[in-house]
Amino acid sequence: MKGYVTDDIIYALATAWAQSALAVVRVSGQGCRNLLSTRFSRPKALIEAANATLVHGYLRDGNGSAIDEVVAAVYTDGHGYTKEESVEFSCHGSLAVIKEILALFNHLGMRSAEGGEFTFRAFLHGRLDLTQAEAVGELVSSQSQISRSLALGRLEGSLRGRIAAMKEQLLGIVAAVEVQLDYAEDELDEFVFPRSGLVDLIKQVKDLSATYQIGRLYRMGARIVLAGSTNAGKSSLFNLLLKQERSIVSPVRGTTRDYIEADLDVQGIPIRLYDTAGLRESDDAIESEGIRRTERLIGQADLVVYLVDSTELGHVPKEDERTLVVYNKSDLVKPPKGRMAISAQTGEGVPNLLAEIAKRLAKGSVSSGDEQVVIESERQHTLLENAAQALQRCLVLVDQDIPLDITAVELGEALQNLGELTGEVTPADILQKIFSGFCVGK
Amino acid sequence: MKGYVTDDIIYALATAWAQSALAVVRVSGQGCRNLLSTRFSRPKALIEAANATLVHGYLRDGNGSAIDEVVAAVYTDGHGYTKEESVEFSCHGSLAVIKEILALFNHLGMRSAEGGEFTFRAFLHGRLDLTQAEAVGELVSSQSQISRSLALGRLEGSLRGRIAAMKEQLLGIVAAVEVQLDYAEDELDEFVFPRSGLVDLIKQVKDLSATYQIGRLYRMGARIVLAGSTNAGKSSLFNLLLKQERSIVSPVRGTTRDYIEADLDVQGIPIRLYDTAGLRESDDAIESEGIRRTERLIGQADLVVYLVDSTELGHVPKEDERTLVVYNKSDLVKPPKGRMAISAQTGEGVPNLLAEIAKRLAKGSVSSGDEQVVIESERQHTLLENAAQALQRCLVLVDQDIPLDITAVELGEALQNLGELTGEVTPADILQKIFSGFCVGK
Repeated sequence: MKGYVTDDIIYALATAWAQSALAVVRVSGQGCRNLLSTRFSRPKALIEAANATLVHGYLRDGNGSAIDEVVAAVYTDGHGYTKEESVEFSCHGSLAVIKEILALFNHLGMRSAEGGEFTFRAFLHGRLDLTQAEAVGELVSSQSQISRSLALGRLEGSLRGRIAAMKEQLLGIVAAVEVQLDYAEDELDEFVFPRSGLVDLIKQVKDLSATYQIGRLYRMGARIVLAGSTNAGKSSLFNLLLKQERSIVSPVRGTTRDYIEADLDVQGIPIRLYDTAGLRESDDAIESEGIRRTERLIGQADLVVYLVDSTELGHVPKEDERTLVVYNKSDLVKPPKGRMAISAQTGEGVPNLLAEIAKRLAKGSVSSGDEQVVIESERQHTLLENAAQALQRCLVLVDQDIPLDITAVELGEALQNLGELTGEVTPADILQKIFSGFCVGK
Repeated sequence: MKGYVTDDIIYALATAWAQSALAVVRVSGQGCRNLLSTRFSRPKALIEAANATLVHGYLRDGNGSAIDEVVAAVYTDGHGYTKEESVEFSCHGSLAVIKEILALFNHLGMRSAEGGEFTFRAFLHGRLDLTQAEAVGELVSSQSQISRSLALGRLEGSLRGRIAAMKEQLLGIVAAVEVQLDYAEDELDEFVFPRSGLVDLIKQVKDLSATYQIGRLYRMGARIVLAGSTNAGKSSLFNLLLKQERSIVSPVRGTTRDYIEADLDVQGIPIRLYDTAGLRESDDAIESEGIRRTERLIGQADLVVYLVDSTELGHVPKEDERTLVVYNKSDLVKPPKGRMAISAQTGEGVPNLLAEIAKRLAKGSVSSGDEQVVIESERQHTLLENAAQALQRCLVLVDQDIPLDITAVELGEALQNLGELTGEVTPADILQKIFSGFCVGK
């Protein structure tokens, strides 16, 4: 396995790098208890602990000074998350404590784990297939109940099952073709290619692939930029949505220069919202730099909410998929009919605006009760797209009566792509890439 | 016990509210396993688990849908942190998972724990005295190795021991006085008040109390405001210290208007640094609001680093304990002799500046190797100050030959204060206040 060494002892902080009541530091690898016992106040208890038991004690530095009081959760070889001998230390959730413990483990000659390396070992030891392993990372990064539920479904094997069914259907077609290829040419006229099965399979693969957009939205969230001319009320709307006075608001044009960002949740979708410098020609060097930053943010946004000052209609951009034009100051001037209007002063129209934002971003919806399988991995999306394209090419060849041995190549490629999805035929460097995207400690 | 109910089942997230590989949710209280088993995939295994063992399974919602795959660490009555029946669930560290689990526990009729309530139960059940219980909170919030080591020392009983020794010495004096009071007046002329013992005790109490300043600094850190006239280079220095281009920098006066804040570490002291609007008269309403904010920040700062533009010396404030005057642009103009000088452009002088900042803030130093006892709790500081003052008043009375029964009152007050330190004579509402300052889940 390129990149990951698999027979040494690895360690990582498994909880967040932040102050809290508890933190957990994970260690995995054969012989880890012997090594750890040299710095543990109760070495014998640690070494002799039965699988799935807890041992209380102190971790100590090289001078024998206590680093922290801890509880060690012990897993013996063949058990636990990685199916290797492993120990999970619960310590006090202080950054200083965590730093000292990590330094101690490093000093003992263990290796700081790469992202996803614990899960990779679980995959190696057959605890999970590849779609399930990926679901672990996706579950951890889930930010809404919808995405949690979908990821847990994949961890329990929903995607694995769906792919297995598609693969079986494809293998049926491949088998029929191969039998035909094994016979003599004079029997070919009797063969009818299972076209409707192929068409059905293409639809299935495409439908599954299309769920990527929704899966990605609920996982990654979206970037929304508040743009518009100076004094359109962007900072007022920003403060209103955040429910705090974060941006300085004034009647003077060009009040906001450096952009300000904050997070919020719009109907289950994680949003990063940017308040930006108003767009106008400016001789002021700082404001101009602010406007350049605004333009860069607009370029990277999933959705631009372009605020127009209803009291003085200047430039109004064209609506498009990525641009939502909103008329502000509806409390002062009646906005054009049929256009989205709000008052950042009174809050009027803001619930409508949020609903429209969610609708624009989601372009469809998934409810958490559904038994639906949704993918959110770019890798899976690419493989499904490749499989669909190979099957589509196969269909074209069939309709043109091209010899079966050529269509068989396309079927083989589709099969290869489906196999990579579950990790049966996945090259080592791809594995490395998948797991390294995980957070460390998982 | 006012405020805290002590016979129900409490729960809390014990790890940070942030995405990570793992999170831990803690539950404590008699009967918690029975209640939890109704939503656990292996109810019998959970209920029958021996103390200090791990049980793998799924937590499920009311419809039987899995919320997450978890590992339950089980402690039976009389064991574990709280010395109550308790369970700690390790789940996937996704915010969505955590939310669902907390909602489930709330739905089961458990009570969301107040800050410090788990530790309070540990105190109630005699696992810790009050200085040790406080040390738990202090250990968790420690941000440097120095403060970690000091807090762990207190958790292991260093402060408890120190106070016990002082109390014993005080009790010796009290006993001598009380014997005297019990005898007839005609024997009074033979009594010599143990004055030197009292003087020594006052010094001990004062010395311990004085460690508060250093303890507080390493725990809470300090707020430093970069101030100075416009264009003095505050944003350049800010970016240099943070090692990133966070603030917009330009040669134009008044570039920074809304303040920008960031965290850094200066020689083990956690610092929150503020880049502010330059101080000048301004007709610009936004800039004026920025300057008002700067002034407010200066009022709240532990240290103001006042940057002077060496190329055009305008107003230079007086140095004092809280104001450090620094001449910037030393690469362009030689600063006045003997004054702190830097170049935010080249970085020249910045290490000196950081050392001076640390020196100013610490006004003394503690090295982590010391066996020193340092306090960082405001409550402990107040009690020690009160004890010192009562002892001091007692000394004055003794020196004025005031009757012993009056001096005895002051000794009694000092004893009361020392007793409150360890929790022997602490009123319930004080206990409530101490523990509620902890983070939830501890």
